[in-house]
Amino acid sequence: MLGNFMYCNPTRLYFGEKAMKGLRKELPKYGANVLLVYGSGSIKNNGIYDEVTAVLAEAGKNVFEDPGVMPNPTLQKMKEGCALVREHEIDLILAVGGGSVCDYAKGISASAYCSGDPWERYYKRHDKVDNLIVPVGCVLTMAGTGSEMNGGSVVTNPDENVKIGRVFGDNVFPKFSILNPKFTYTVPKYQMVAGIFDTMSHIMEQYFSDEDDSASDYIMEGMMRSLVHSGLVAVDNPHDYEARSNIMWLAAWALNTFVECGKTTDWEVHMIGQAMGAYTDATHGMTLAAVSLPYYRRIMPYGIAKFSRFAKNVWNVDPEGKSEEELAAIGINAMEDWMAELGLVMNSRELGMTEDMIEGIADATFLLGGGYKKLTRDEVIDILRESMEYTGDRIS
Amino acid sequence: MLGNFMYCNPTRLYFGEKAMKGLRKELPKYGANVLLVYGSGSIKNNGIYDEVTAVLAEAGKNVFEDPGVMPNPTLQKMKEGCALVREHEIDLILAVGGGSVCDYAKGISASAYCSGDPWERYYKRHDKVDNLIVPVGCVLTMAGTGSEMNGGSVVTNPDENVKIGRVFGDNVFPKFSILNPKFTYTVPKYQMVAGIFDTMSHIMEQYFSDEDDSASDYIMEGMMRSLVHSGLVAVDNPHDYEARSNIMWLAAWALNTFVECGKTTDWEVHMIGQAMGAYTDATHGMTLAAVSLPYYRRIMPYGIAKFSRFAKNVWNVDPEGKSEEELAAIGINAMEDWMAELGLVMNSRELGMTEDMIEGIADATFLLGGGYKKLTRDEVIDILRESMEYTGDRIS
Repeated sequence: MLGNFMYCNPTRLYFGEKAMKGLRKELPKYGANVLLVYGSGSIKNNGIYDEVTAVLAEAGKNVFEDPGVMPNPTLQKMKEGCALVREHEIDLILAVGGGSVCDYAKGISASAYCSGDPWERYYKRHDKVDNLIVPVGCVLTMAGTGSEMNGGSVVTNPDENVKIGRVFGDNVFPKFSILNPKFTYTVPKYQMVAGIFDTMSHIMEQYFSDEDDSASDYIMEGMMRSLVHSGLVAVDNPHDYEARSNIMWLAAWALNTFVECGKTTDWEVHMIGQAMGAYTDATHGMTLAAVSLPYYRRIMPYGIAKFSRFAKNVWNVDPEGKSEEELAAIGINAMEDWMAELGLVMNSRELGMTEDMIEGIADATFLLGGGYKKLTRDEVIDILRESMEYTGDRIS
Repeated sequence: MLGNFMYCNPTRLYFGEKAMKGLRKELPKYGANVLLVYGSGSIKNNGIYDEVTAVLAEAGKNVFEDPGVMPNPTLQKMKEGCALVREHEIDLILAVGGGSVCDYAKGISASAYCSGDPWERYYKRHDKVDNLIVPVGCVLTMAGTGSEMNGGSVVTNPDENVKIGRVFGDNVFPKFSILNPKFTYTVPKYQMVAGIFDTMSHIMEQYFSDEDDSASDYIMEGMMRSLVHSGLVAVDNPHDYEARSNIMWLAAWALNTFVECGKTTDWEVHMIGQAMGAYTDATHGMTLAAVSLPYYRRIMPYGIAKFSRFAKNVWNVDPEGKSEEELAAIGINAMEDWMAELGLVMNSRELGMTEDMIEGIADATFLLGGGYKKLTRDEVIDILRESMEYTGDRIS
């Protein structure tokens, strides 16, 4: 823990099969006007909508609805949401859905009363939020993004082909989140494994940096071991409560500012994946899956000690008789095997990416340089090309 | 993560060599009257007192002092502190010291305005705190108890020979804590290693329970691996900043309600150790060290799968060709070797315990039954006897 940092995460989590009791406890703390934010309406099919609205009615709330939040929430949608918040003098924004819905809720929470253009000020310039922040609560139905316990808000502007992730301070974190693992049971397998890999990627973005001996790295190794194990159990049996609960818990903790404490971070995979997402509208976790193998194999030589540690401590690779380089390579191969077993899409062509997008995606990728190697634009192009050529046939 | 639970930890942590900047940021949030709480006065020798009072003066605070908090804060001392809080209409209690000082600060924070006797109501009966809670901030000078980020408050009543730990809710958690690893450099080695073992014990009390597959157990394994490693580095070189910072960070996270999430817990070692502490006034972490080996060897047969996992995942014991029982025993032996290398006192006679105390300590021990085996009073007596006979000569 070499750096100087502040840590504070005030989000109150209610976890478990009975987590909805938490919503009953929380609602009296807020005023009467609630904006119920959700996505495509799947919550109406699986009963979660009915359960939530019953609790809201019981608490005597005036409920206004803002449905139709898309997997990659757009700037236009966000402007409409801000108008709803102002029009109905909303006291609590209740997000019911996955990461996109939570992201969107925090976006309108911070932006509704912004003086000036929130896209320019809060997303592009990262200004400090200086206006009234409308409280947000979440009922999570999909695990992966960690949005339920952080200040992240990713918004896409299709006019500019740009997807920007803003990280707000703890004053914008959800005040509470309801995490019932059973609420994730009806998520399609494609989305479930994308969420699992999103979580894995969050941890890796924070793990693969520095050459010190931070306690955070040991904690992340434990988290990855649990996620690797529970991910496989969940793919086999999506109704395994324990596996789904571990996945849900780890997703929250992988990106709630905890494991980055005392560390520098990378985030290059997310930058390339987000740029790909802006062009293809592909599921976030799948874009990360497509980018990760070419990315990590490329930067491996610059962080060989950490990659060999990853092999030993996360993938149980026996170091006996192996060089650090061999260990490192075996570790990434083990991860590749795990990704294949989950059923992740690792070829970006299958995600809708085409040759003519490559230059644009490379241009839209922010080059952060936080990990073991600052990428050049050419290297991003190479990684994107490799992601299109992925066949699963490994040369090892 | 099988249980239902609520998690919320609102304490704001400022960590690192520059953590005192956090105190400057926090002070303006509170009123003018600050009660400065500390222990035996070592902070006057190492410069921390001067640094803190300079920041308080700069912020224009009226500072009242409450020194002399003992390693095991007494009920009498707490009553005097409560009177000071009321007399000076204190707006912020600033604890500068280790766990005892923080525990004491939270005790008077919750108790000063209690209607009725706080010892009876809050410590013995565990009533909900229904009065004004005076905000607490901490400047930590010793790592181990985790008191800087939780609601714990252990108070001793010498008249009754009882030491009771009350766990208050998150409304009594410190509002902020200043964690500068360098502030722990002047702690004597005896206290440093006692703190390291206190942290280890906190994790083990939460790890050794259940037979499920909780993500929390994986996270704890990572934390223990880091603590084992950094503990040895710190014993070798107490000024190793990184080791001391890892230890400080792990101490906070070992007992801030995080790793217990979704789990049942044990705490029997703490119950016996606390009872021993009430009789001997020995350092808390050392009483735990004296009790742990006889305790864990006794309950091992009832949780053999977890003890063999502990051997593999924390102590890197190669499972090849070993039975679970053998693995489990080797794991505890590895822990014993580590404890010896740290220089912990594992014979309770050396901590001031005498034969005539045994019955009384057994009577003062709460039998919780949360781990793998509900102890009987006779078993507690056996454990206490074994702790007096410890020589370090292992039969293995």
